[in-house]
Amino acid sequence: MRNWLLPENIADILPATARQVESAKAAMLERFRTYGYELVCPPLIEYIDSLVYDGDTALVMKTFKLDDQMSGRQLGLRADITPQVARIDAHLLSSRQGVTRLCYAGSVLHTVPESAMRSREPLQIGAELYGSSDVGADLEIVDLMLASLEGVGVGGLTLDIGHVGIFRALAAAAALPAPLTAELFGVLQAKDIPSAETLLAGAAEPFRSALLALPGLYGPDALSRASQCLPALPEIRRALADMQAVADSVAGRATVNFDLSDLRGTAYHTGLMFAAYAPGWSDALARGGRYDNVGDKFGRARPATGFSLDLRDLVRVLPQRSPAMGIRVAGADAGRAREAIAALRTAGEVLVIDYLGESATALNCDRALVWRADGWQVEPFASH
Amino acid sequence: MRNWLLPENIADILPATARQVESAKAAMLERFRTYGYELVCPPLIEYIDSLVYDGDTALVMKTFKLDDQMSGRQLGLRADITPQVARIDAHLLSSRQGVTRLCYAGSVLHTVPESAMRSREPLQIGAELYGSSDVGADLEIVDLMLASLEGVGVGGLTLDIGHVGIFRALAAAAALPAPLTAELFGVLQAKDIPSAETLLAGAAEPFRSALLALPGLYGPDALSRASQCLPALPEIRRALADMQAVADSVAGRATVNFDLSDLRGTAYHTGLMFAAYAPGWSDALARGGRYDNVGDKFGRARPATGFSLDLRDLVRVLPQRSPAMGIRVAGADAGRAREAIAALRTAGEVLVIDYLGESATALNCDRALVWRADGWQVEPFASH
Repeated sequence: MRNWLLPENIADILPATARQVESAKAAMLERFRTYGYELVCPPLIEYIDSLVYDGDTALVMKTFKLDDQMSGRQLGLRADITPQVARIDAHLLSSRQGVTRLCYAGSVLHTVPESAMRSREPLQIGAELYGSSDVGADLEIVDLMLASLEGVGVGGLTLDIGHVGIFRALAAAAALPAPLTAELFGVLQAKDIPSAETLLAGAAEPFRSALLALPGLYGPDALSRASQCLPALPEIRRALADMQAVADSVAGRATVNFDLSDLRGTAYHTGLMFAAYAPGWSDALARGGRYDNVGDKFGRARPATGFSLDLRDLVRVLPQRSPAMGIRVAGADAGRAREAIAALRTAGEVLVIDYLGESATALNCDRALVWRADGWQVEPFASH
Repeated sequence: MRNWLLPENIADILPATARQVESAKAAMLERFRTYGYELVCPPLIEYIDSLVYDGDTALVMKTFKLDDQMSGRQLGLRADITPQVARIDAHLLSSRQGVTRLCYAGSVLHTVPESAMRSREPLQIGAELYGSSDVGADLEIVDLMLASLEGVGVGGLTLDIGHVGIFRALAAAAALPAPLTAELFGVLQAKDIPSAETLLAGAAEPFRSALLALPGLYGPDALSRASQCLPALPEIRRALADMQAVADSVAGRATVNFDLSDLRGTAYHTGLMFAAYAPGWSDALARGGRYDNVGDKFGRARPATGFSLDLRDLVRVLPQRSPAMGIRVAGADAGRAREAIAALRTAGEVLVIDYLGESATALNCDRALVWRADGWQVEPFASH
């Protein structure tokens, strides 16, 4: 094994892709700004307690642990940025009583990859809206998520819409004990109907049948089927209405797919959940949802909704672009041509100083800056 | 201790500063592009052997260690990006025979801070030029370093110019054994003349006196004093000429200070070294220099020169800017006004949807989007 080999599911981002990642990130951060989202950069390392929501053991397992020489305490290398942003809203910006919009972009690290194809170092970018439980806030986040993808050229979007509140309402109505609820959540997530039937053997109708129906409530028509087969609890009626509102708000912009079977392992979601898919990548490109009460452990429970995506996944579906060709300057001319060089660079041109007499291909240049009777001129440059 | 308290010398970057960091980074990366530098993003974690130059124990000490569950091997959380970029030049881009220009921007982590005031998570941005030992390459890097600082509004720059090759040439001419050379390097770095005299008790003249003179060779006139008091070895004459060439190239742009006493703990520098200072921050804002043969351990020794800076330090000297005021939209209008909102955002305006009926101050808005007989209009908005 050669000593520069990288660990599994860890990779360099090389030039062609790196500029794409950087431009997509810049375009998204600029869009977030025009929606009123303020940028924050939480640190890569924190005390482990701050990095995870209480009870999210999956996130604890994904988090690399470090020893802090300065405190003797254990640190974690963040595996998610959302809990950090919730900490900032709850603690540092706690004087704000109304809505706070925050966005971020940065690396997270996972001890093991989420799937064989994914990096252990996702480049997470996202936006969070705190302080409003209005469905309008969810519509804003869905709009921002789709606009962010559309803005970097991703077309043919499909939006999956779910609502974890329906499961919770049914479990509460059936008066299932907390451990059974947690176990049932996992079993339904795995679409393991026989185990779900066993767990629900003693549960009351119509909640038992409704819970067993959830894994089948998937597809463009799942919402109408759900309104027929689920009991008309107030929480369920409101959840279905909110899902319909999201669908209506993206009409003509994305193909909608309802999904009550998707109970993802995000221990913190409490309401609407959504995921965006695009041709060329089988997993969701972006995910989000509502996670009320998330700042609770930091002393300030707030309604919240947000989304995030991994820029490393995103660039898999973006068309490759070649870098712009530059203008060659001979090393011996660099000093004398300084002003001409600076002016061209300010205009956005790439000026490459050539110390070794390299070829046009090696320099990636199609023009050259040369001295003529009327001053420095840009002329065609061919390989020699 | 409250559980959201951050570790020592670790901090969030909050909105006002975060946008500044992001704009400075974007401006620098765009400048690097126009100089022909290709962007790379090496990973945050690697096998520890790849992250440090051989023999750089100081860097090993600064590097957080992690256990890799997937391989059972020890990983490091990078404390510097330069060795990673050298790995990329040597390994991934090894088919290129000529000059390769690479740049990067990302966090690094230090087990202990470099000083009490500094973060353990510097935001390192830098540029490296591989494949040319021409002094022109050093001039290009110095120009890029100064232009990067000037471009984000840092004025009153001072450039310190040193050359570690002078120490190495004197030590070689005096035939000092390697362990003594290493010890002397540390002693001179600490400007501990008595210990240096003891170590050099048996060393031959004129090299002994020249080595003892180095700590005093500091200041605007140090170059002329050096050419008088140092022996005229070819390496020394060339080093002094190169230092003069750097000084000449920045005339009128920065105050120049020569410094032969600065033997910093960067085990990898081999030639010219430079550092940029600005009013408002006592330490160097940016540092760089030549570090030939750096890809050696990756199988490809190449001449190299480059510079880097910490964006967290940089923003300490930048003037604070207030974020632009936005345009308020009532939550109930968000759906109907969708097209007007999108058009204003595309024009760069910040449109804030107000779900709670907040004040102009809380929303940071000085205008509002309202429906009038002639359509959606932007009007002044005052607190209510």
